Amino acid sequence: MSKYSICLDIGGTKVLGAIFDEDLKIVHRIKKKTKASEGFKNVEETIITVVRELLSGYGIDISQVEAISAGAPGAINSDSGIVLFSPNLPWRNYEIRKAIEDVFGIPFYIGNDVNLGVLGEWKYGCAKGLTHVVGLFVGTGLGAGLILDGKLYTGNDYKGAEIGHMVLNIEGPTCNCGQRGCLEAFSSKTGMMDYIRLQVKHGRSSVMEKYIPDGVFKSKEMRAAYEAGDAIMTEAIDRSCLYLAVASGILVNTFSPEMIVFGGGVMEAMGDIMLEKIVSKVGTYCWPSIRDTVKFSVAGLGDDSILYGALALIVDRKK
Amino acid sequence: MSKYSICLDIGGTKVLGAIFDEDLKIVHRIKKKTKASEGFKNVEETIITVVRELLSGYGIDISQVEAISAGAPGAINSDSGIVLFSPNLPWRNYEIRKAIEDVFGIPFYIGNDVNLGVLGEWKYGCAKGLTHVVGLFVGTGLGAGLILDGKLYTGNDYKGAEIGHMVLNIEGPTCNCGQRGCLEAFSSKTGMMDYIRLQVKHGRSSVMEKYIPDGVFKSKEMRAAYEAGDAIMTEAIDRSCLYLAVASGILVNTFSPEMIVFGGGVMEAMGDIMLEKIVSKVGTYCWPSIRDTVKFSVAGLGDDSILYGALALIVDRKK
Repeated sequence: MSKYSICLDIGGTKVLGAIFDEDLKIVHRIKKKTKASEGFKNVEETIITVVRELLSGYGIDISQVEAISAGAPGAINSDSGIVLFSPNLPWRNYEIRKAIEDVFGIPFYIGNDVNLGVLGEWKYGCAKGLTHVVGLFVGTGLGAGLILDGKLYTGNDYKGAEIGHMVLNIEGPTCNCGQRGCLEAFSSKTGMMDYIRLQVKHGRSSVMEKYIPDGVFKSKEMRAAYEAGDAIMTEAIDRSCLYLAVASGILVNTFSPEMIVFGGGVMEAMGDIMLEKIVSKVGTYCWPSIRDTVKFSVAGLGDDSILYGALALIVDRKK
Repeated sequence: MSKYSICLDIGGTKVLGAIFDEDLKIVHRIKKKTKASEGFKNVEETIITVVRELLSGYGIDISQVEAISAGAPGAINSDSGIVLFSPNLPWRNYEIRKAIEDVFGIPFYIGNDVNLGVLGEWKYGCAKGLTHVVGLFVGTGLGAGLILDGKLYTGNDYKGAEIGHMVLNIEGPTCNCGQRGCLEAFSSKTGMMDYIRLQVKHGRSSVMEKYIPDGVFKSKEMRAAYEAGDAIMTEAIDRSCLYLAVASGILVNTFSPEMIVFGGGVMEAMGDIMLEKIVSKVGTYCWPSIRDTVKFSVAGLGDDSILYGALALIVDRKK
């Protein structure tokens, strides 16, 4: 009697875990820190621990679980369950499916986290019923996913949809990936932090400067600074939105999608403010005749988009 | 006994027509000037004239023709045979299929010209057997086509793949479409002409300046100037290739395609020189791990890519 599904959102610093019931609702959830830098065994052990804690916390047995499914960063072969490479996790050609199935004896599915985020929004969120959907997920980095012709598009070797690294200004700021002027270098939290760092270096002052040593800030701190009228944070947000608009324009012209969905931590915290800024600018960077039929939306499932996308992998296999 | 197919490549200034035999080889061809500015009836009449001249020139009857198929610029609903809009032809929601079928009494198919160019290269040219292919066709304008997951991608309302109008520099030169810094504004013949015009205005001299009043030059004249060492023509070509490399980088990261095909008149005349310039720069604008599995090729069918794509529409319907 398998009535539950366990879904995971595996990040470089944390694993989110949730139990879904057969009505596809989350009935229990936990969050656990990962130490990716300590090697893949550690991440794998974290996954195993999260699954066990979910089971015991909700008081069910693994025999009541249909399957386990996870989203993780990187190029992932969803058919074989092999992580080809991952920028933030220490995995390369790693047979994670086999490792997890050996422990629990039930099916384990895995896909790229942001791809699954868009899949989740398309199956259960704000993009339900559409055929062509682009998703941009803004957080520490900037990931993307594509639903094209009613199907998740992953490209050759599952390496496609790296839209966060489209070069929007060949003389732009250096990105973590080594390129210059990537969308991520302008619009992610990392890109905004770089902007803040530069301004502070030039003698200006911001409430966000205390986060410079760590190189990272929480999205809610960003919102607080914006609402307090911090000039540098506001400029960083405006610049982020400008380049999200430029990228959206390119994506409108390239795909003629029905919707562009904005997800991730930044959009969960700031979507109401940022979506308006993006949409007001996007018309300058695409054709009106194409843009007219595109909707722009903040992710309907919030922080749970990836969990729901992982759920979709289980539901789709059952069909 | 239908053994022939008639295929057309309808442009703003000319119609190319060809008869294909049942071995899918071109057995007869003609070229005819169009006067698109005189209204759609004129273009329609040109198509009818071209078909009739093809038949009489090769000495066959319409009853020996399976179908007529055409590529034309614009957003075209291939399923209904309606041209939604066309930038260079005076058509809007025009039922061209019905008009032509009423005259000849055999099926007429139509699709976007550059989409068909990529389809042609995928079915019969340099991209045969691949699954994910991006095509960039460089001429007076800059068109594109996408084969994704083994299928021509056209997006919502057949408006997708307007990759020539992706904005690569928000402060770049003004494009005919009204945007600034489009790929087309840098890399098409129009973009190169703009560069030449600006340099000449600044007091420099080029063998190409005689084409400034008309705003257009032939691709072979461009090659002659390049081979004669004309500095401004060379700079315009280098700039064209730089932005084709930036765009290719974006397309590599977005699609992880197996191949990017470069077609159109400019590539037919200059492909050997320009492909090398593009490929040498593209690595700076995409991820090496994705780029490693992408091939770059000049169109294998040359000026006939679109005719072969139109042929594919006929062959695919017969299946």
